[in-house]
Amino acid sequence: MMRINGQPADSIDARDRGLAYGDGVFRTLRMANGRPLWWRDHVARLEADCAALALACPDAGLLLEEACAVADGADCVAKLILTRGSGVRGYAPGDTGAVTRIVMAVPLPPHAWADAPRAVRARLCTLRLGHQPRLAGVKHLNRLENVLARAEWTDPAIFEGLLCDEAGMLVGGTMSNLFWVREGVLCTPELDRCGVAGVTRARALRAASRLGLRTRFERQPPAAILAADEVMICNSLIGMRRVAMLDAAELGEAGWRERLDKALYEDLD
Amino acid sequence: MMRINGQPADSIDARDRGLAYGDGVFRTLRMANGRPLWWRDHVARLEADCAALALACPDAGLLLEEACAVADGADCVAKLILTRGSGVRGYAPGDTGAVTRIVMAVPLPPHAWADAPRAVRARLCTLRLGHQPRLAGVKHLNRLENVLARAEWTDPAIFEGLLCDEAGMLVGGTMSNLFWVREGVLCTPELDRCGVAGVTRARALRAASRLGLRTRFERQPPAAILAADEVMICNSLIGMRRVAMLDAAELGEAGWRERLDKALYEDLD
Repeated sequence: MMRINGQPADSIDARDRGLAYGDGVFRTLRMANGRPLWWRDHVARLEADCAALALACPDAGLLLEEACAVADGADCVAKLILTRGSGVRGYAPGDTGAVTRIVMAVPLPPHAWADAPRAVRARLCTLRLGHQPRLAGVKHLNRLENVLARAEWTDPAIFEGLLCDEAGMLVGGTMSNLFWVREGVLCTPELDRCGVAGVTRARALRAASRLGLRTRFERQPPAAILAADEVMICNSLIGMRRVAMLDAAELGEAGWRERLDKALYEDLD
Repeated sequence: MMRINGQPADSIDARDRGLAYGDGVFRTLRMANGRPLWWRDHVARLEADCAALALACPDAGLLLEEACAVADGADCVAKLILTRGSGVRGYAPGDTGAVTRIVMAVPLPPHAWADAPRAVRARLCTLRLGHQPRLAGVKHLNRLENVLARAEWTDPAIFEGLLCDEAGMLVGGTMSNLFWVREGVLCTPELDRCGVAGVTRARALRAASRLGLRTRFERQPPAAILAADEVMICNSLIGMRRVAMLDAAELGEAGWRERLDKALYEDLD
């Protein structure tokens, strides 16, 4: 099921700037019984991401209505794409009128099913993310770095690839944010130069104090997490997963995954 | 006029990876009497760019046929977009089957008309291009940096914005490649960290020796071009243009623009 600008449809104008330049943003929502999880957090990120591109963010109520319509009561994924609309007049954003809204429902991928393993294997990618402070944190449609990084492996036993930036500092996974706990501190990479600041990351950071964890933004090379009490990755579809192995290294376990994952779903804020 | 995978159409599957991730490449062809200028050079770049993304480049004869079909004998622009096709299975390029081919004709923009001024004004953009050696030189669909840079000005008297990389070194214009001549050397920025290596740039570099110019790839801050004999920008639509002013600075003139522009159109190689 799909709606484009509110209407049932499954194709977009080939002159759309989302295609021409990746001029837009997106969100991936986990839908439970046809309703999005963590909707308020997604709206906050969507508005911030639109602001970063000077895109007019559509009304949140309208987007919610469309996401629920395509989900049609199911447990599934709703993907929301907003682009700057159509135009073939070059890079200048100009005044293309309304933003294009694309809302589609897709089945939950197996790795998001309830019975998927909570501990996963990861590898360190060789691609390094470039620094672009103007786009750092934003879930925009320029995702070739993620595609190239994800193309580095095909072994289905490897769940995720971790990425460093050009300075060799950890940023996150190709499709997830990264956390580790060490000595009572929940650490996650600083995302002011590259990476995507996900909704699940924001929720985990807010939940930390409830679990007695301090939080810290870090710039650390991969070696730093090998000695952590526990290493985790997260996103809206999978919640919090423990990284049990990074390449050939076995990583620690300290019970934080269960506690953090549970806290993600508490709607206290 | 537009063709998508050979068929008359003007919309694409909203699940296309070109939209979702900018997972594709493009070319902008100047069509004269319905035939592309510099076709062999465009094919060479297209094949190199596809290789950088591990995309299967379609047969060049097929693309030529489609570009000529949409141009329908006119003087116009043909835009060619190749994407990795449809799929909603995440970043992994997987096996989406055939590449999506989008070929559209659009009118020549006024700045490409025969009577457009040959000397132009430029400004220095504040956005700095991030380094990503894996994508440097490639004309891919992740062009948010260009969009953000082009959004920095609206004054129609300013023709182009010049961009530096994160190290403060000149890379090129938002839609053009950059050249300058100094002491008998045709200089252009090294594009191994960012930027797009355009067809016109390649032709100008090849033409240089015919004009008695040596060539050199440079990493230089903007100050370096203020003292040049002449500064130029180029692309397939505009040929070679002289930059007469960069912000408030008047730049030199030494007659190279005319000679280089003429040489671009000589089909010696």
